Amino acid sequence: MAKTPTSPASPPAAANGTRRGRPGYDQQTVLNIAVDVFNRHGYEATSMGILAENLGITKSAIYHHVPSKGDLLRLALDNALGGLEGVLDDPRASTGPADARLEFVLRGTIRVLTDRLPFVTLLLRLRGNTDIERDALARRREFDHRVAQLVDAARSEGSLRGDIDPRTTTRLLFGTINSIVEWYKPGGPIGADKLADDVISMVFDGLHKKA
Amino acid sequence: MAKTPTSPASPPAAANGTRRGRPGYDQQTVLNIAVDVFNRHGYEATSMGILAENLGITKSAIYHHVPSKGDLLRLALDNALGGLEGVLDDPRASTGPADARLEFVLRGTIRVLTDRLPFVTLLLRLRGNTDIERDALARRREFDHRVAQLVDAARSEGSLRGDIDPRTTTRLLFGTINSIVEWYKPGGPIGADKLADDVISMVFDGLHKKA
Repeated sequence: MAKTPTSPASPPAAANGTRRGRPGYDQQTVLNIAVDVFNRHGYEATSMGILAENLGITKSAIYHHVPSKGDLLRLALDNALGGLEGVLDDPRASTGPADARLEFVLRGTIRVLTDRLPFVTLLLRLRGNTDIERDALARRREFDHRVAQLVDAARSEGSLRGDIDPRTTTRLLFGTINSIVEWYKPGGPIGADKLADDVISMVFDGLHKKA
Repeated sequence: MAKTPTSPASPPAAANGTRRGRPGYDQQTVLNIAVDVFNRHGYEATSMGILAENLGITKSAIYHHVPSKGDLLRLALDNALGGLEGVLDDPRASTGPADARLEFVLRGTIRVLTDRLPFVTLLLRLRGNTDIERDALARRREFDHRVAQLVDAARSEGSLRGDIDPRTTTRLLFGTINSIVEWYKPGGPIGADKLADDVISMVFDGLHKKA
């Protein structure tokens, strides 16, 4: 369906995005830049002054978009967590053999991570020094917990090896996947789908060439 | 050989360690506490004032042990990097089939990581904003490069699967191993040797139960 430029159904971000010049920043752009600065310097070490400098606008212009640095953090973390929670809410995460559901969830997690890289990076580097960070870490633990239940189910089903403790298994899986934020470059030589294939191959079948 | 308490060959740290009270901190103790504070708050966000508060001594008392915050960072990173480089310098890292050498180096890396956990954690969280950090990151890259050469050799030898790019392989291996610092608790339910066995099992043979 074609939309006229004045259609009230046009997304506000896109409408703002057509404005020219720095004062025209929309909230999403402010957020994207803020997340990059947080990731480079650490959230705690980033003042509103440093943010304003990176945005090329005044501190009061930032307050036009968000009431505080904490709100930027909250929005950014919600972006990452919403994506991850969406994977678990997909019907493919709750129907069929546990092994296939686990693979679906791991692939989906990798996809969120590559699609929303700076946001997930921020989430994974949180130290939990503020209420906003602690709330986000609680949501992340809930996500991890639901994946751990899938690991348990796949193990009970007989799909996963029994000599590695399920908690260690879950931690190694998350460790492997989460570490991708440290090196993955969107638009680089390896695409998100091939990366997901490689991770799934390594963690489920191993790097050794089969005889 | 027995040593008298006044032997000049006695290690200074041990001698200082017998002193009582906070002014008797030796450099290693100051370093251990500083590394914990750096890991909790981030190196950049940690001032000498915060360090003094955590040590329960004055800023000038810290300067008695080290000239600057940067020196504490340098000593801490050297502890981590020295351990890792020691693994590659062991003859078992350079003799025999590449596959066995790679396994030796991965096990050794896990051992350094569990033995020197706070120091390696600090190394892995560096952002490279100062010369000291950049020097350490250069040493870490050199370590990573030498492990990547082992991965290449094991792949050429025919031990590792050919469908995953060797650079991706190396990154996933380091990602899996380095993530251990995020959750491993020394003295907890899983010992360092069992952890190394589990990691080696997953990355080389996979989590799927073999038919």
